[in-house]
Amino acid sequence: MEIGIYGLGRFGFFWADILSNHFKVKGYSRNPLRNAPAGVERVDEDEVLKTDTLFLCVSISSFAGVLKRIGGKIDQGTVVIDTCSVKVYPVTIMRNSLPEKSGIIASHPMFGPDSAKDGIKDLPIILWPVRKADGEFKFWADFFKRIGLRVIKMEPDRHDREAAFTQGITHYLGRVIADLDLHESEIATVGYKKLLEIMNQTCNDPWQLFVDLQRYNPHTGEMRERLHESLDKIMRLLDDRQRPEL
Amino acid sequence: MEIGIYGLGRFGFFWADILSNHFKVKGYSRNPLRNAPAGVERVDEDEVLKTDTLFLCVSISSFAGVLKRIGGKIDQGTVVIDTCSVKVYPVTIMRNSLPEKSGIIASHPMFGPDSAKDGIKDLPIILWPVRKADGEFKFWADFFKRIGLRVIKMEPDRHDREAAFTQGITHYLGRVIADLDLHESEIATVGYKKLLEIMNQTCNDPWQLFVDLQRYNPHTGEMRERLHESLDKIMRLLDDRQRPEL
Repeated sequence: MEIGIYGLGRFGFFWADILSNHFKVKGYSRNPLRNAPAGVERVDEDEVLKTDTLFLCVSISSFAGVLKRIGGKIDQGTVVIDTCSVKVYPVTIMRNSLPEKSGIIASHPMFGPDSAKDGIKDLPIILWPVRKADGEFKFWADFFKRIGLRVIKMEPDRHDREAAFTQGITHYLGRVIADLDLHESEIATVGYKKLLEIMNQTCNDPWQLFVDLQRYNPHTGEMRERLHESLDKIMRLLDDRQRPEL
Repeated sequence: MEIGIYGLGRFGFFWADILSNHFKVKGYSRNPLRNAPAGVERVDEDEVLKTDTLFLCVSISSFAGVLKRIGGKIDQGTVVIDTCSVKVYPVTIMRNSLPEKSGIIASHPMFGPDSAKDGIKDLPIILWPVRKADGEFKFWADFFKRIGLRVIKMEPDRHDREAAFTQGITHYLGRVIADLDLHESEIATVGYKKLLEIMNQTCNDPWQLFVDLQRYNPHTGEMRERLHESLDKIMRLLDDRQRPEL
């Protein structure tokens, strides 16, 4: 079986590298300067679209444009698996853009080069069989379990809701803290050190991923609204008028 | 040497317990139902005020009232050490309320029963010699080092500024997250788990301590203002009008 990786950015490179330990992997990037990992064959767009399983590793914001261009060119026998950090949006696009016969699986590998630097064991991957790919869904679920991942079958909308109030809020606060330009301190408490860790981890991801996570998840708007409400509520409870004079 | 602990709340009990492994310790609480730890003698207010070194373990918001009442009754030979989580405010109160001959040391043990549950090794304690207590300052700095603490000599105002932008911001965000009622999730990322840890740790402390840390530190107002500015800035950058329609 031939695996194709469409997009060799930070995540695509990492993902191609992992899969190449187990499959013959072909990688494509529109950017001619991007390298493929050792063991992954760099191919052109037409060739990557002929693979048996095609993982889409492009940014969420370019997803619709890419699918519009390649949707009609993908081999009917190819199973397409996206890897976006939101799920309702790319699933809708794939359903609308891919030939009716193409199998579709939604996936969200909830890790990347940073969180997996000590190995992928027990890291979570979300999977959902979108269309005509029951056999392939079982194959990939079994494979990911075998290499140590924690496979979670979850509907796209439930994924997006949970993600908004876990990953989404964490990244949002991470960016806010980064904007505050906080720094190490000799009087740092355990909790503060954790806050700095969240910031550093968040800000290793590209800014575009952060923006996409917030914009293309239908539940992050509510999350941000509730976050602001809670902030304002705590602020009111601390009303400065009650601060004592020295 | 006799040590007095004034106040046997959550921190005073913990502090009396630690010191009683090394000194004869007398503990006082205005609340007759409060116990002293085993090895600490429960005494009345007059007796605790006659000890050689008196640690004040009362809440920041009751600090001025307590000092007003006991200031004139404290033995002139007694060295008074506060343990408040802010420093400029209690130092000012102590200077104004204690007899001119009394030695004063400011301290902030930056830990408590939770963060020290696996021992106090390497935990930080801030010290500052406020008045007429150079010998005692050296004694206590040496003692705290000997039992494994990390002793940091820092001026009260610098302490408060650093604390506002480390401990203060962490507690503030911890309370905000708690108000959002976030919960465990099977798709929790490493960063999100850290956020929950911060929340749980913050909310183990009494609400009054949180309010006091925010109200009695002269720099937390600026911290909260800058936090809100950064939140609004990130929010603007994500302007919902740019969100795509499905």
